[in-house]
Amino acid sequence: MNGAKSLVKTLLASGIDVCFANPGTSEMHFVAALDQVPGMKCVLGLQENIVTGMADGYFRIARKPACTLLHCGPGLANGMGNLHNARRARSGIVNIVGDQAVYHRPFDAPLTADTTAMAQTLSQWVHTSTDTPSLGRDAAEAVRAANRFPGQIATLVLPADVSWQEGGEPGSPLPAIAPPAVDRHAVENAARTLRDHGGQVLMLLAGHAVLPQGQALAWRAASATGARLMADYVNAHVARGRGRLQLDRVPYDMQAAIKSLAQFKHIILVGAKPPVGFFGYPDTPSIQHAADAQIHVLSRPDQDPVQALSELVSALNAPEVAIPDPGPRPEAASGAPTPEGLAQTVAALMPENAIVSDESISYGRGFYKFTHAAPAHDWLHLSGGAIGDGMPIATGAALGAGGQRRVINLQADGSAMYSLQSLWTQAREQLPVTTIILNNSKYNILIGEYKNVGAVPGDTAMSMLDLGNPGISWVRLAEGMGVEAARATSMEQCAELMRTSFDKTGPFLIELMV
Amino acid sequence: MNGAKSLVKTLLASGIDVCFANPGTSEMHFVAALDQVPGMKCVLGLQENIVTGMADGYFRIARKPACTLLHCGPGLANGMGNLHNARRARSGIVNIVGDQAVYHRPFDAPLTADTTAMAQTLSQWVHTSTDTPSLGRDAAEAVRAANRFPGQIATLVLPADVSWQEGGEPGSPLPAIAPPAVDRHAVENAARTLRDHGGQVLMLLAGHAVLPQGQALAWRAASATGARLMADYVNAHVARGRGRLQLDRVPYDMQAAIKSLAQFKHIILVGAKPPVGFFGYPDTPSIQHAADAQIHVLSRPDQDPVQALSELVSALNAPEVAIPDPGPRPEAASGAPTPEGLAQTVAALMPENAIVSDESISYGRGFYKFTHAAPAHDWLHLSGGAIGDGMPIATGAALGAGGQRRVINLQADGSAMYSLQSLWTQAREQLPVTTIILNNSKYNILIGEYKNVGAVPGDTAMSMLDLGNPGISWVRLAEGMGVEAARATSMEQCAELMRTSFDKTGPFLIELMV
Repeated sequence: MNGAKSLVKTLLASGIDVCFANPGTSEMHFVAALDQVPGMKCVLGLQENIVTGMADGYFRIARKPACTLLHCGPGLANGMGNLHNARRARSGIVNIVGDQAVYHRPFDAPLTADTTAMAQTLSQWVHTSTDTPSLGRDAAEAVRAANRFPGQIATLVLPADVSWQEGGEPGSPLPAIAPPAVDRHAVENAARTLRDHGGQVLMLLAGHAVLPQGQALAWRAASATGARLMADYVNAHVARGRGRLQLDRVPYDMQAAIKSLAQFKHIILVGAKPPVGFFGYPDTPSIQHAADAQIHVLSRPDQDPVQALSELVSALNAPEVAIPDPGPRPEAASGAPTPEGLAQTVAALMPENAIVSDESISYGRGFYKFTHAAPAHDWLHLSGGAIGDGMPIATGAALGAGGQRRVINLQADGSAMYSLQSLWTQAREQLPVTTIILNNSKYNILIGEYKNVGAVPGDTAMSMLDLGNPGISWVRLAEGMGVEAARATSMEQCAELMRTSFDKTGPFLIELMV
Repeated sequence: MNGAKSLVKTLLASGIDVCFANPGTSEMHFVAALDQVPGMKCVLGLQENIVTGMADGYFRIARKPACTLLHCGPGLANGMGNLHNARRARSGIVNIVGDQAVYHRPFDAPLTADTTAMAQTLSQWVHTSTDTPSLGRDAAEAVRAANRFPGQIATLVLPADVSWQEGGEPGSPLPAIAPPAVDRHAVENAARTLRDHGGQVLMLLAGHAVLPQGQALAWRAASATGARLMADYVNAHVARGRGRLQLDRVPYDMQAAIKSLAQFKHIILVGAKPPVGFFGYPDTPSIQHAADAQIHVLSRPDQDPVQALSELVSALNAPEVAIPDPGPRPEAASGAPTPEGLAQTVAALMPENAIVSDESISYGRGFYKFTHAAPAHDWLHLSGGAIGDGMPIATGAALGAGGQRRVINLQADGSAMYSLQSLWTQAREQLPVTTIILNNSKYNILIGEYKNVGAVPGDTAMSMLDLGNPGISWVRLAEGMGVEAARATSMEQCAELMRTSFDKTGPFLIELMV
């Protein structure tokens, strides 16, 4: 068999059965092998940042990697923005990047670029296969790397001739690499700190620590000792709603973050890093916690926080304790759209076990407070700050849930324009995604940041911050890509459209004028 | 003054007065400086690949660099596809990439990435400014690098604190670096080869050699010696139509290219590289010329081919000679759309001195033959094979021509979906761009390539090659971004819409169902 066939067989044997793709000429033998070896679900994205963003969203919900199929260095480059977000989300992805034939590369044909160097800027594992018999083994290594806890970006560069030549040998699936063990001293240190200083301790949770099992264990430790719990500002995937903790996150605003963390003399990191500002600002520190706070690492991001919390709870002899009731479910709001009203309405109407893809940027910073009493759901954030992941994440998450869960994409308009092509894939795959575009016709976050610089934006600045000239019609854009859509100017209209959309099996877009 | 202000002053003093932008938080002081120091035209693109593609198109027509304003590593990454094309076009661009404050970088905030490493994969010049007083000088160096003949990608990474700190000093414009002189021996060798073997010689032209002055000189040399002239398959900018040479280009198809070059025993490269296949194929060579052809380099891409041709013409004592008349202007075609009919209709109707941005991919390979007798015009190709440059190139070219020339964008649909956001900038700036979308609802080039692999695409392959499910409505997409649009299903309708659009001052989109 040729290399391509051995590659497909290896991927399937290693548990990779979804391929997000935008292929090119150098990948045609791989595409042909996908035809010949059944078992891979192939999903087309109309630009590579859609492809990589879908793979990220898929991993966050399916909890296993998909592969991507990308075309040469520039195709990889097009997908690097969302690979950055996926890296920050610690999602596992196997990128297959087709490239020039090994012997053809020195001729420097137009599409030739330094694919390997590009991949290295964002991947934890990169390998360029150079001979066909090794390709299967290389692919098995790539899958193992992508699966490394909690998830990694693995990029396999596949020259066209390595793909088309005969002599391919499928690689055997490789045993998973266990995460580094939790450190006994770290557990004892955290337990001592909690026992001695409970009321002054913040346990800062990230990664698997904000999923249901981690939350329950953290809550036991906190309840037994008086410690406070918070989540990172950014969470790739946090379990929320009834039955889950009413976790606050560290605020985005630097002064608010500093204020919220000032009281804590001890911070125990559970899968989290010490909290720092998204950006540096003049005359403002980088760190957000008190300068004299003691930082304790219970578990690093590459260790299993559930294991760590479990050992901590044992060390504390912390009893089982119920998750607090969040109170009555909110009712849908009425009147002019507001952030609070939208959050309440989403909480009031979302179906059980929904998924929220949140790229609401400035509009959505307060959504958490009003959605604690929604039914149990999963919430996915823009993890790396590279705007344009909300729509592909929603698309990939819907596929990761096998099309069985409603996905609600709370989506800022400026960011949406980065990856609007996602809507087409939602229509093609008839995915249950309700997109709510927050149309304020500007880069509102930046207008706020400009004011921090000390002035009101002038004409030149506004020529780079305003999206209102011309106004964008999201209804037409959606319809142009086969997604049904309607505009709402009040919360009542928005609620009605949400209800309508939740009854559908396919995608729907609500353009909310805010 | 702060660093940002010194940077803007330096750019303006060095001749950079257009900034294609998509800013973020770390660039707010630069944005504020653009407000405070008048003189820079700022043009917003709604995704960074639009921004970099516009800068490429601007350079190709204005023949001077613009700057871009990009946000951190991921913002740069989003624009790398079209930076790849710009590098292949040898366009000059000054990228200003805002980034984390120097002191904030070690804290590894979410948007932190290896910006410098990313820039190095595609830039001929990269520098990360680390202190405010040097920023002006660094910027002057960046502009000098971008201007280096025929044009280069220069990337200046600008940490936020270097931008906001006081102590900025505007840099003096630096004298241009002259291209390496033409080699006297190379000229003599070319002249001897032409004199001795004229009928067996191909002069392969690229870069400035396919602009009017270069064409006229090359034609004198060829006419005096019986040599043949051809252009590269890909030309960033070629002068065409009445008064210009009826240049053929080396065919894309490998077998056709080999056939067309087989007769030549000598190839004189004038700004061109030896012709090679776009991709390697099984049992096919990489080079397209005869294996025993002698390659002569009259001028490298970094040397001035007009100077070289001028010296060659002198060495040959080649007399002035008229450019051949291309015959009568074609008439607009009728009936069902065909590639020939479209090319004839474009040739029949285009206004004098138009610009064609050609990302027609497979549909447009034969357009040249039917457009020689059009009025004089400039033709811009997808230069690096990274699809998605046609629409931003058209947008930037229109700005490069000061809005005074009609731009006709012959645009494949699959590639168009890579950078459709360009339409919004066309509407915002009211640019005279007529986009003709060639809607065949598939990646037709890849279906052809798949057949080369030896089979008909199956269901899995077609799930990655077909764009027809759902069908995309380009009329709605354009209207959603404020661009007037209409659909044509016959050449008569297409011609009528072209005429209508050419009378407008702003953009128009024709969706041609092919």
